Amino acid sequence: MRTTMCRKSIFTSAMLLVVVLTSAQQPKQTVVSPQINSDNTVTFRLKAPTAASVKIKGTWMKDSEAAVAMTRTDSIWSFTTSKLAPDFYRYNFYLESVEVPDPANSYVERAGTRYESIFIIGGQSSLYKVKDVPHGTISAVWYNSPTLGMNRRMMVYTPQSYLENTTVKYPVLYLLHGAGGDENAWIARGPLGAVLDNLIAAGKAKEMIVVVTNGYPGQIASPNTGPINPNPQAGVNNMGDGRFEQSLVNDVIPFIEKRYRVYKDKNNRAIAGFSMGGLQTQHITNSNPNLFAYIGVMSMGLQDNNRLNNFNREEYDRQIKAIVKADPKLYWIGIGKEDFLYSSVVNLRKKFDEAGLRYEYKETEGGHTWSNWSLYLCELVPKLFK
Amino acid sequence: MRTTMCRKSIFTSAMLLVVVLTSAQQPKQTVVSPQINSDNTVTFRLKAPTAASVKIKGTWMKDSEAAVAMTRTDSIWSFTTSKLAPDFYRYNFYLESVEVPDPANSYVERAGTRYESIFIIGGQSSLYKVKDVPHGTISAVWYNSPTLGMNRRMMVYTPQSYLENTTVKYPVLYLLHGAGGDENAWIARGPLGAVLDNLIAAGKAKEMIVVVTNGYPGQIASPNTGPINPNPQAGVNNMGDGRFEQSLVNDVIPFIEKRYRVYKDKNNRAIAGFSMGGLQTQHITNSNPNLFAYIGVMSMGLQDNNRLNNFNREEYDRQIKAIVKADPKLYWIGIGKEDFLYSSVVNLRKKFDEAGLRYEYKETEGGHTWSNWSLYLCELVPKLFK
Repeated sequence: MRTTMCRKSIFTSAMLLVVVLTSAQQPKQTVVSPQINSDNTVTFRLKAPTAASVKIKGTWMKDSEAAVAMTRTDSIWSFTTSKLAPDFYRYNFYLESVEVPDPANSYVERAGTRYESIFIIGGQSSLYKVKDVPHGTISAVWYNSPTLGMNRRMMVYTPQSYLENTTVKYPVLYLLHGAGGDENAWIARGPLGAVLDNLIAAGKAKEMIVVVTNGYPGQIASPNTGPINPNPQAGVNNMGDGRFEQSLVNDVIPFIEKRYRVYKDKNNRAIAGFSMGGLQTQHITNSNPNLFAYIGVMSMGLQDNNRLNNFNREEYDRQIKAIVKADPKLYWIGIGKEDFLYSSVVNLRKKFDEAGLRYEYKETEGGHTWSNWSLYLCELVPKLFK
Repeated sequence: MRTTMCRKSIFTSAMLLVVVLTSAQQPKQTVVSPQINSDNTVTFRLKAPTAASVKIKGTWMKDSEAAVAMTRTDSIWSFTTSKLAPDFYRYNFYLESVEVPDPANSYVERAGTRYESIFIIGGQSSLYKVKDVPHGTISAVWYNSPTLGMNRRMMVYTPQSYLENTTVKYPVLYLLHGAGGDENAWIARGPLGAVLDNLIAAGKAKEMIVVVTNGYPGQIASPNTGPINPNPQAGVNNMGDGRFEQSLVNDVIPFIEKRYRVYKDKNNRAIAGFSMGGLQTQHITNSNPNLFAYIGVMSMGLQDNNRLNNFNREEYDRQIKAIVKADPKLYWIGIGKEDFLYSSVVNLRKKFDEAGLRYEYKETEGGHTWSNWSLYLCELVPKLFK
């Protein structure tokens, strides 16, 4: 009798175990969303029986467009896009005007202080997808910055071979993010790992280390590090104060060249960034013309005003002459036709043309968007260290 | 005139730049939430003018408790908890019954396929907070698993000194997650980095490498890797099939011992896990009594039924005898008094007592929760490799 009870108790416990542990991994929404249809339209669904208003906004829309209403059928709200071009998309629902991720989509990424649902259109051919190729290691690494007076976090991509061949040295790309981002922005949204893995596996890019820093001199690390106190949200006005730029040169590069197996000459250093990071890239290379043989400026042109970067025209002209003399192997500029900074790039190119600074220029559709920055990463990386 | 227009255009562009780039980092919610009050009560707020129902549920409540209604004042819904004990908490809102993270809280973490807002109570004394101490590196590393026929992702914590002293070797803790989790669960929720950093900095734990695998034999990597196809959500029934356990022994340990500077003897190997990971820890150490000198089983006891792990009583008795003979330096068992698996731990201890297997036993308040698993991590790590 006692044995029977004990067995029954164990059996009950095992059943409960299966039920509890299984329920732990079930999504709460039973709807399928997003559903990528065979014609590359995409259907979104949200189960919200008592809601009076559900809208959706995604990066297939223009920034200026308002969220569009979803349609209710019974308890399910849904919306289907028109046919979408291959790209990496973000979207959120507006449930009673509150912006929320799609609860049925397990792929959510942080964009600054916000969280957005994501999906990719592009089939297995897309460079943005994690495919069955050798994968590099992505590490969250802390370093000391005497310039900024703090220990800070950076992300470091090392190709798969870095762990395997412990004598081989690599070139390094320093990759800077835009305003609102942090050291995780290129990792999450690039998506840096997939792009580098896929380009290297296809023989289109050289093996390299990629270092992604946090461009706000007041920040220790991004929110996904966990609750940090203090972690001031530095304002965009920091972008022109030059302290991040100094810390990259004085702290970040020496750290990487001491702790990683890398080549330490300008022909094996590249730097690139978009928007705020494009301005910082210009500041760093203008002030240090012989540090990098490869320079990429994305979605950012000439900012010859005091408001943003204490602009000194005579000093700037001297700097550009020094870059011409340094003769970088590549000065790459990319901008979207609809970018609100387009005219600043016209001005930058005019300046470079006048100074005789050779550059490669890529003009794309679209505006000041991650769609373009991911595209530029795919364009730029194959040109480096060759 | 032309010069003036040009200057004006540049000025306008710079102003627009500041506005656009600043707006990119502003949270959409202007309310403060969560607000940790001086008496350790916590106030949550959601701005949702048109909503008819907003509720909240958090891990300060029992699993079985229903979400509680928030109170509306003008357009702001709010709720204040009673005084909370120091801990790492998760919560979400239920907006018109849809579970959503707190839009005003920039700290959100993934739990399986769901996303939850988080906060920590405990002041700077908490082991869970990122403090200004030397920080280890946390790396997402891919390895080949011939046993499972796929390339898979794991997370590896290396202490800060690993990058600095390139000849020093380290012991290794293999840390397994529960059902619904993946290789990122201990990183995000442990939180592994902060706990290890803080214990090592305080001189309470030895420097060690910690390896966190994905315990589902059907999974390549966790969703935060980016969209992966195929990435089957393996069912909990995989937990007993033994394939993950084989892959840890055959693939993971050899990879780590080849690619990292580690000691390769049992006295420098530890393994621990909770719930499903506690069962897998038992399977692995029962089958390989001489691989690990330190064993930790959290929130999981004896599962002597065929349903979960093809239990063979005679084989099991032989295995326990072999562990007694192997005489591990530590066999640590932790369970919460309210855990639904409590009786299985009673049975496990009875078995061990009968067999003469020495173990340390920690019984805590609470149930089958991350509050306990984080606590057990803080308890166990200082006991390893000493």
